[in-house]
Amino acid sequence: MTDTAPSAPPCEALAHLKTALRKNRRHAHHRYFQLASVTAEGYPRNRTVVFRGFATDDQTLLVITDSRSDKVAEFAQNGAAEIAWYFTETREQFRIRAVTSCISGSTGSTEDAALREQVWRQLSDAARAQFFWRSPGLALGAGTTLVTTEAVPETFALLKLSPVAIDHLVLSKVQTRRHSQLIDKHWHEQWINP
Amino acid sequence: MTDTAPSAPPCEALAHLKTALRKNRRHAHHRYFQLASVTAEGYPRNRTVVFRGFATDDQTLLVITDSRSDKVAEFAQNGAAEIAWYFTETREQFRIRAVTSCISGSTGSTEDAALREQVWRQLSDAARAQFFWRSPGLALGAGTTLVTTEAVPETFALLKLSPVAIDHLVLSKVQTRRHSQLIDKHWHEQWINP
Repeated sequence: MTDTAPSAPPCEALAHLKTALRKNRRHAHHRYFQLASVTAEGYPRNRTVVFRGFATDDQTLLVITDSRSDKVAEFAQNGAAEIAWYFTETREQFRIRAVTSCISGSTGSTEDAALREQVWRQLSDAARAQFFWRSPGLALGAGTTLVTTEAVPETFALLKLSPVAIDHLVLSKVQTRRHSQLIDKHWHEQWINP
Repeated sequence: MTDTAPSAPPCEALAHLKTALRKNRRHAHHRYFQLASVTAEGYPRNRTVVFRGFATDDQTLLVITDSRSDKVAEFAQNGAAEIAWYFTETREQFRIRAVTSCISGSTGSTEDAALREQVWRQLSDAARAQFFWRSPGLALGAGTTLVTTEAVPETFALLKLSPVAIDHLVLSKVQTRRHSQLIDKHWHEQWINP
């Protein structure tokens, strides 16, 4: 896709994740995972988000969010995330520790800005409309209008999640669990006890 | 079921959760949710767990775990949890902030000990067997035997999750989101912007 070399050799667990995505695709919810963050006060937060594909490095996971959302503030203060992704068809879980970075209208390289625009263009009108609503979490108010534009709004942010450790648990048949960790740009893998 | 008065008036969002459990029951995964915690170093952790029902107060959620697992240590140090529970059939999410307490072999009231034993008795042999394995997360070793007993092993712990705030997001049809918060033992509810 691109001639940019990935920052680290590919991780085998990521190949398994891609296989899981393919094997579970008949359910729309196979693209939903749970994303945990930590607040400034040290509380855990957890929400379901939609996987929007990989970045050009084929390793970094992409999620869209409202720049006014709590998770953007949380990750700005503490960039650590953990994904819990359970695939209902193949009965396997990926726990992915990741370092986050957020691409909003005012930040990022030219490449990041292009990626943000590309993801925006792929959205449905319904998905786009939310970025023109009042701030998420505010009391419900009147005056919510269904406006949507081709131009990327300031409220549209792209969250990049770069994996640093992956725990792959397979529940079907015999339970297996494998832990992969990125150390000095190399992935180290080990079978561990479930 | 019991003549113990609940510690707070029932929360309407919990009634919706019970309805969701009923409406989604044809999929075994309707009982799986993602549970986030925070490590001593301030990192988020997230994993899929199985809902084992409510405690006798009909509000506290129950989850079983190995007393040697990381989450037991994490919650002992920081008792705050957030559950993200997505129901695939009815397309709705409950985010539940909860205070955790852990009932292991050596802790808890007589009532807690009875509850722990009751949950153990309801487990399948396969579910029980895991508590006789080596510590979860250790390198996979030989000598894992399938022993299981009627007596509750020391490694079997029951995690109690008492909700303090619930965010209910409904994706089907028109998106709605309602936030419920426990303040001074009373639930306060508000419709908010998704």
